[in-house]
Amino acid sequence: MITRKEVAAMAGVSEATVSRVFNGVGPMKEATKQKVLEAAAALNYHPNAIAQNFARRRSGNLGVVLPYVPKVHIFSTYYFAEVLSGIGEQARNSGYDMLLMFRAPGEGSDYSGFFRSHKVDGCIILGATDTPQEREELRKLEEFSYPYCLVNQQYPGEDFHLVDADHVQGSYEAVRYLIGEQHRRIAFLNGSPEYSNSADRWQGYKRAMKESGLLQPELERPGDMPDGWYYEGNYSRKSGVAAAHKLAAYLASGEIDGIFASNDRMAIGLIQGLRELGYQPGQHYSIIGYDDSEASRVTDPPLTTVAVPFYEMGFLAAKRVLDRLNANGQEAVIPDASARSMLDTRLVIRQSVKLSSGTD
Amino acid sequence: MITRKEVAAMAGVSEATVSRVFNGVGPMKEATKQKVLEAAAALNYHPNAIAQNFARRRSGNLGVVLPYVPKVHIFSTYYFAEVLSGIGEQARNSGYDMLLMFRAPGEGSDYSGFFRSHKVDGCIILGATDTPQEREELRKLEEFSYPYCLVNQQYPGEDFHLVDADHVQGSYEAVRYLIGEQHRRIAFLNGSPEYSNSADRWQGYKRAMKESGLLQPELERPGDMPDGWYYEGNYSRKSGVAAAHKLAAYLASGEIDGIFASNDRMAIGLIQGLRELGYQPGQHYSIIGYDDSEASRVTDPPLTTVAVPFYEMGFLAAKRVLDRLNANGQEAVIPDASARSMLDTRLVIRQSVKLSSGTD
Repeated sequence: MITRKEVAAMAGVSEATVSRVFNGVGPMKEATKQKVLEAAAALNYHPNAIAQNFARRRSGNLGVVLPYVPKVHIFSTYYFAEVLSGIGEQARNSGYDMLLMFRAPGEGSDYSGFFRSHKVDGCIILGATDTPQEREELRKLEEFSYPYCLVNQQYPGEDFHLVDADHVQGSYEAVRYLIGEQHRRIAFLNGSPEYSNSADRWQGYKRAMKESGLLQPELERPGDMPDGWYYEGNYSRKSGVAAAHKLAAYLASGEIDGIFASNDRMAIGLIQGLRELGYQPGQHYSIIGYDDSEASRVTDPPLTTVAVPFYEMGFLAAKRVLDRLNANGQEAVIPDASARSMLDTRLVIRQSVKLSSGTD
Repeated sequence: MITRKEVAAMAGVSEATVSRVFNGVGPMKEATKQKVLEAAAALNYHPNAIAQNFARRRSGNLGVVLPYVPKVHIFSTYYFAEVLSGIGEQARNSGYDMLLMFRAPGEGSDYSGFFRSHKVDGCIILGATDTPQEREELRKLEEFSYPYCLVNQQYPGEDFHLVDADHVQGSYEAVRYLIGEQHRRIAFLNGSPEYSNSADRWQGYKRAMKESGLLQPELERPGDMPDGWYYEGNYSRKSGVAAAHKLAAYLASGEIDGIFASNDRMAIGLIQGLRELGYQPGQHYSIIGYDDSEASRVTDPPLTTVAVPFYEMGFLAAKRVLDRLNANGQEAVIPDASARSMLDTRLVIRQSVKLSSGTD
């Protein structure tokens, strides 16, 4: 490869002058600049050789983008706590520090800027949503081959690096279990619609319900659901409590006998709200949560839920990014992009579902 | 201010040579070094003028040192999750990113190196223990006036920057409450002795017990406690389960009627272990935990515990560090170091303590 030294010798200037021409810094005689550019052209010396060299400066930081909501204790959320723990384990094992960068909803992120400014050597993106601006930023990361990985968010039609769990299957199995225990009127409390996670759970719920003839095959949109069967929260406990107040009337009239909630926090809020109104889970109604959070294990009764390997997802996302980094300029030996991008979930049976008389 | 340029001129060397002398890098003739040092002395030029200048390069990162234990999901620990949430809120509000650096127990930390290498502009240290090496590293931070703050760990005899909660008082009030409800034979399950936290709880327990004549005034060391009244875990749920197996015999014989545990995780482990042996909390015995973790609110029965303002502690520690940073070379307007360094705890009464017949 042609170096700065050779260009300097040919142009009859110092190496520093060559750098200044290509970095565009400092005052510079036009004649000197021309000599340098001519020498560079003759030798086939490319400015981005400098850029590449610059890019070898490592920060030693693995970036993690986190959603920011004022006053929300994000690390106390089971999902983020587990994913971050997995990322941290892998980062530590590879000698990297973890740089957490907060981003408010709707606030754009100049992801490639994190790389250009050497704040990070690689980056993991959590809590992303599907917006045109976001897709644009992610495409830039692809374009410049910056090592990054999304966790738990999909972009239909794009081929972004990501790690997710099979939430369609997880939701399907949860609802199948309720149906197997003779529940027929199963309400669904979903989370915020801007996450692919919520769409996945809706797909799983619908598939199970349609297969058993409990929903019409042509039903597609939540708006077409039977009265009192569909609710939307924002994955918070409070939104579960709020849903309880709307849902209680349908429980009372027997129009609902089971509930599937898109996460444990909402399920626990729902249980607390319904308990205040006199309804006991596993007795007056059945409920299944999602996440297998620590709280789900200690509620009364313990919550039947869907375990998601969040820790492993974080670990795997970090491993992918760091493997690409360690390939170190060579053509990286990256595992097939599709391999193990979609981890399995697992139904965890506890005591919040009434068993059918056959097995009780 | 005298600059490098003037020293170089007087010593008859290049400015780079002056830097190399004061940074101690690269090969250097002894005679050259002497010339530079003499010129510097004559001009009253101080090496840390360079350090100060260099230090004006900002990384935009607020460092957080975290303890690393393989496979432990640290972000899923209520204590760390809350402290980090408070730090994150403050960092985000001040436009800083958060650089997490893991350190294994016993592994030294070159804290001042984080500053010298511009990885961080300020630093918060969590999970520190009281060892001679640690004291040495912290003294260096003081010496160079690097902005840092310790959280939840004290160093008797040192005047380090720190934020803590009053765990002596918190523990005292918990044990006082048990005594007020007519408990007399109160066992204590403490956490790992290397934390000042554990020592604080032991002080609070002892003070309450001695005041009521339930322990001899001259008792000082755990080794002198009545048989079956003192246990030591490591703040994990598992260590609570393990303690249950030792403690059960003393419950059975009536030698214990109440238990104070140094955190909720151990209390929950203890409850689970004792339940398997047939003992129900709030019925066969009383128990108080510590932390007011999310789990303590959903156990059966809900756990009486001591709330610690972890989020506020993280927020305040970050604020102190960032305030010093923003003072920006001027003499910083730092609030009185002793002001609000010690936050209040609060007893949260739920249902794991049997009430005395008078109030039952």
